[in-house]
Amino acid sequence: MEEKIVKAIQDDYPEEFAWCFGCGRMNEDGHHFRTALDGDQTITIYTPEPEHTAIPGFVYGGVIASLIDCHGTGSAAIALHRKNGHEIGDGTEPPRFVTGSLKVDFLRPTPQGTPLKAIGSVEEIHPKKFKVDVEVWAADECCAKGEVIAVVMPANFTNK
Amino acid sequence: MEEKIVKAIQDDYPEEFAWCFGCGRMNEDGHHFRTALDGDQTITIYTPEPEHTAIPGFVYGGVIASLIDCHGTGSAAIALHRKNGHEIGDGTEPPRFVTGSLKVDFLRPTPQGTPLKAIGSVEEIHPKKFKVDVEVWAADECCAKGEVIAVVMPANFTNK
Repeated sequence: MEEKIVKAIQDDYPEEFAWCFGCGRMNEDGHHFRTALDGDQTITIYTPEPEHTAIPGFVYGGVIASLIDCHGTGSAAIALHRKNGHEIGDGTEPPRFVTGSLKVDFLRPTPQGTPLKAIGSVEEIHPKKFKVDVEVWAADECCAKGEVIAVVMPANFTNK
Repeated sequence: MEEKIVKAIQDDYPEEFAWCFGCGRMNEDGHHFRTALDGDQTITIYTPEPEHTAIPGFVYGGVIASLIDCHGTGSAAIALHRKNGHEIGDGTEPPRFVTGSLKVDFLRPTPQGTPLKAIGSVEEIHPKKFKVDVEVWAADECCAKGEVIAVVMPANFTNK
């Protein structure tokens, strides 16, 4: 499995939708999660910052939930983009998803200082709705499992 | 409903467990969520920072998930502390919870620039496990609903 994300779907989001605190490349203060295709799965690699503490030594659950959230919407965007005949980096604007729901089961304390890998499996459950099952691994331990229902961005997100 | 949190359970956490990025008073870079009793419910009030963007104008879901997460563990700590005969601020160390699972349904886009109120209802489902139902309100709109299963902190969180 690749340890570096080369082509990420977030690199192709149009600039106006690239401000997400989790995964927006334009947001200077954000996490900059980047999600790629990896075989028939998807992958995001992220090393939490030292301040992302739960109990000292372990990663804050809210950051793990954030990683799962953006990994879910990014994975859904990859899946629909490919269904539409495109690939990351081909110069076409990908669809943008928002999160309908997010579930996280924290299986064990997640150690700090280790790159986390979010691995996603995407399933289309409606033409505009995708379910993404996510596992978060720290080295050889699966620390959290999540499920994201990602929905094509509705119009009321852009009326502002 | 009070608009300011006066006595928060997080103010009473022992210092070694007060470093949480979400709710730890010792974590300079964190959100500093503070959770109080409000009648038979619990409340956390938090205004996301300008950088906590999803799509510009709306709050990032990972921050809403974080708010629900720490509101859940804080609410469970309040409930067990009170069951043990104590109140916030009485000088007794409250129990510390971790998150077993977290569910968030995003009902509508959450506007930025508005204080968010997380309101919790706590139910004991096991002597060491509490379910907290959470609603997140922005002004008079309920923008997200969540459920946290909070578990008394197991020993493997402190062996490090």
